[in-house]
Amino acid sequence: MVNILLSGANGHMGRVIADIVGGREDCTIVAGIDINTDQYGPFPIFSCPQDCRVKADVIIDFSHPAALDGLLSYAWETKTPLVVATTGYSSEQIAQIKAAADNIPVFFTFNMSLGINLLVELAKKATEVLDGQFDIEIVEKHHNQKIDAPSGTAIMLANAINETAGNQYEYVYDRHAQRKKRDKKEIGMHAIRGGTIVGEHEVIFAGRDEIITLSHSARTKEVFAVGAVNAAVFLKGKPAGLYDMSQLI
Amino acid sequence: MVNILLSGANGHMGRVIADIVGGREDCTIVAGIDINTDQYGPFPIFSCPQDCRVKADVIIDFSHPAALDGLLSYAWETKTPLVVATTGYSSEQIAQIKAAADNIPVFFTFNMSLGINLLVELAKKATEVLDGQFDIEIVEKHHNQKIDAPSGTAIMLANAINETAGNQYEYVYDRHAQRKKRDKKEIGMHAIRGGTIVGEHEVIFAGRDEIITLSHSARTKEVFAVGAVNAAVFLKGKPAGLYDMSQLI
Amino acid sequence: MVNILLSGANGHMGRVIADIVGGREDCTIVAGIDINTDQYGPFPIFSCPQDCRVKADVIIDFSHPAALDGLLSYAWETKTPLVVATTGYSSEQIAQIKAAADNIPVFFTFNMSLGINLLVELAKKATEVLDGQFDIEIVEKHHNQKIDAPSGTAIMLANAINETAGNQYEYVYDRHAQRKKRDKKEIGMHAIRGGTIVGEHEVIFAGRDEIITLSHSARTKEVFAVGAVNAAVFLKGKPAGLYDMSQLI
Amino acid sequence: MVNILLSGANGHMGRVIADIVGGREDCTIVAGIDINTDQYGPFPIFSCPQDCRVKADVIIDFSHPAALDGLLSYAWETKTPLVVATTGYSSEQIAQIKAAADNIPVFFTFNMSLGINLLVELAKKATEVLDGQFDIEIVEKHHNQKIDAPSGTAIMLANAINETAGNQYEYVYDRHAQRKKRDKKEIGMHAIRGGTIVGEHEVIFAGRDEIITLSHSARTKEVFAVGAVNAAVFLKGKPAGLYDMSQLI
Repeated sequence: MVNILLSGANGHMGRVIADIVGGREDCTIVAGIDINTDQYGPFPIFSCPQDCRVKADVIIDFSHPAALDGLLSYAWETKTPLVVATTGYSSEQIAQIKAAADNIPVFFTFNMSLGINLLVELAKKATEVLDGQFDIEIVEKHHNQKIDAPSGTAIMLANAINETAGNQYEYVYDRHAQRKKRDKKEIGMHAIRGGTIVGEHEVIFAGRDEIITLSHSARTKEVFAVGAVNAAVFLKGKPAGLYDMSQLI
Repeated sequence: MVNILLSGANGHMGRVIADIVGGREDCTIVAGIDINTDQYGPFPIFSCPQDCRVKADVIIDFSHPAALDGLLSYAWETKTPLVVATTGYSSEQIAQIKAAADNIPVFFTFNMSLGINLLVELAKKATEVLDGQFDIEIVEKHHNQKIDAPSGTAIMLANAINETAGNQYEYVYDRHAQRKKRDKKEIGMHAIRGGTIVGEHEVIFAGRDEIITLSHSARTKEVFAVGAVNAAVFLKGKPAGLYDMSQLI
Repeated sequence: MVNILLSGANGHMGRVIADIVGGREDCTIVAGIDINTDQYGPFPIFSCPQDCRVKADVIIDFSHPAALDGLLSYAWETKTPLVVATTGYSSEQIAQIKAAADNIPVFFTFNMSLGINLLVELAKKATEVLDGQFDIEIVEKHHNQKIDAPSGTAIMLANAINETAGNQYEYVYDRHAQRKKRDKKEIGMHAIRGGTIVGEHEVIFAGRDEIITLSHSARTKEVFAVGAVNAAVFLKGKPAGLYDMSQLI
Repeated sequence: MVNILLSGANGHMGRVIADIVGGREDCTIVAGIDINTDQYGPFPIFSCPQDCRVKADVIIDFSHPAALDGLLSYAWETKTPLVVATTGYSSEQIAQIKAAADNIPVFFTFNMSLGINLLVELAKKATEVLDGQFDIEIVEKHHNQKIDAPSGTAIMLANAINETAGNQYEYVYDRHAQRKKRDKKEIGMHAIRGGTIVGEHEVIFAGRDEIITLSHSARTKEVFAVGAVNAAVFLKGKPAGLYDMSQLI
């Protein structure tokens, strides 16, 4: 049984975490931390880490970049492993998080979804086998309010493939302005936008008369919560160090 | 029973037509025309239309743009309905074909596949219902030797949708160079290239929490042959005029 | 502007309706009805129709089968058009609803999603064109808690296709126990179950070297709410009678 | 450069092999074996292995089960590595092939497609990560003339997944006759039949709000030829033993 301290317990993602943990038998929440200390489950909520009187095996943080300092101090002092699932940190903060891993176990990734991280691993494996014989294209779909394209996750996928293949690929975003055959050394990147699509990613390997497609579809943002709970269960009892989803897969 | 005169009988597509007709009970090939007069089926092959001694209900032409003049003369003189399935005509030749329709029934389209033409009709119907509430994106996939993008068929789809919606849409081919939300008045066009893919087209209507996708996949070029045979059966006995797949659907 | 009376205003679907109407300019909610009269929006909530002092153009009902009698009486007396979006009625209640349509406009369907109802229309259109030449298969995907298979919507799709084709098809649910070729007169029905999938339906038309696929994916149950609001806007000012999604498409 | 002896050189698959090898720079065909000795490429064709005067690095066999004895004798005597791509062997013959691997390198698999064998590896990797949290379903699509269902490849996929997960799964082929929730320990198997589909396989991992799909689509039977050539290049210079696609991936 893994005892979790939930930082950001009253945020949207915090509540989702509590709900997921409630349905599992390998972990439980022993306390929460949140500016809003309204209690909604069978655990106390403290306004800051320093007030917390309950010892936990792992901290899951889904709060706000501004809470990082207090969180790292607390984790360090109490030697509690830390899963960092908050996003939007500055480069300096990311350096701080990585530095903390010298003294405590820290789990940190740009995408908490188990599925997406598995997709990255599978795409790398497929690239090892198919590179040079198959053409690679990446298609991602997101809602019509997203301002960046392609998605960070699509770039993460392309980079993972490219590194596996010796960084020989160029990314191509538009083919309509030219009249030429596809170059073997390109990865086509396609950003579909529409409706309320949460996030879909597809890697296509097209060869001679056969096509392999690896795809992931996230239906809610809860998938990030599931990933964080799995990370917490994994992190209990680990030695100090920096961990990410690749160790979990 | 529709008696077909097959122009281009010894070409790749001519042989496919013969094979398809052989498996149907509503039509038969009574003669072929081809520079190569090698006989491979239960019908004679003549070297040019003027040598042909056999009366047919319909001509299917899958030969070469250079054969157009002789073909049109023969069709005109014998008042035989004509299915034009050859591609690569010049604008002048297209005008010639359309002019011939004043005197004989002529079936002419940019894409002989029944499926693609049905897809166009379904996309128009869906646009009538969903326009304004759903975002529309078109994805096409072709082999890595194709030099143009997007495909002519993708443009045909986009134009059909746009006309149905009052020509309010702009086509967008690349989103990576900008940081902005999707505009309601855009149709995203995505050209995937890889391997030996014959031709796939997909129209995505993405709305609030629901997505409708209409897709067509051509697995060989034979689909154009099937469309031509269906057109021939349809064309028998029709009055002079210009016909296309929309009348068949 | 369509003034809506929202029955079941404090249920999950009622709140979703209120949220959707809040984002539109062609309609507004003037009052709600719910046993729970907690007010959460800019409209009063009454505990039963008979207490309602506000005149509306249309009623949307997303409450409970038990509320039907009071609702029909109120609609009848006030001559208010009624959109019935509640599910789980008995046959007797369905007969009651249809009878009410003699005196007031009533909108009633087994599936309020615009997209699914459009999919039915498109599948019928495709069947008209492809029947006899293409094999038809239906695949649906739902979450692992669903107890019935295939889904009611998959059956609605199959029935619509079958009626269009002259009721010649048999539905086939299992092919593993036999060794035989596919019969032309069967529609394969496939029920995929897994995870939390809300509802996906796909109609496959597979022909000679080409495949047309029509698919719908519902990502939340909110799509039913959107359909109900559209139905309400449509129903305002209509004469007495029974309406469903096919008039809206 | 790998010198290939092509057994079954004048069969459909033999010609495809010759075409593929002609387009590669890492291998060449030095001789063929076939009852029909018509020469169509820059290599001689002998009527049986014993007549063959040309030394090769590897034999690719795409002939007929009846030719096995002569082939194995020849490979044994000349110590030539052997890629067995013919299908339809009896259990006794399979035992013979495996026994031959004591003395020469033998490459043998039930499915020569690189893509399908990679799909198996990826599905096993995904199962290691997702098993217990995600529901697994397998969908395969084939043409309407196929008499068995599900396909051998679908069963190969299911078995690979099941072994990875400790053989805890039951295969379920039909859900329509029952009213119950999905059991965690089932793999749904779905056989779609229609048109001329060559072969498509899809493994769906459906979890809480996320879905991973791994799919393979074969567009012609040539993919088996490509796999056989890759196997031949791999097999040159290997020690005696039994090899299959998993070593190539």
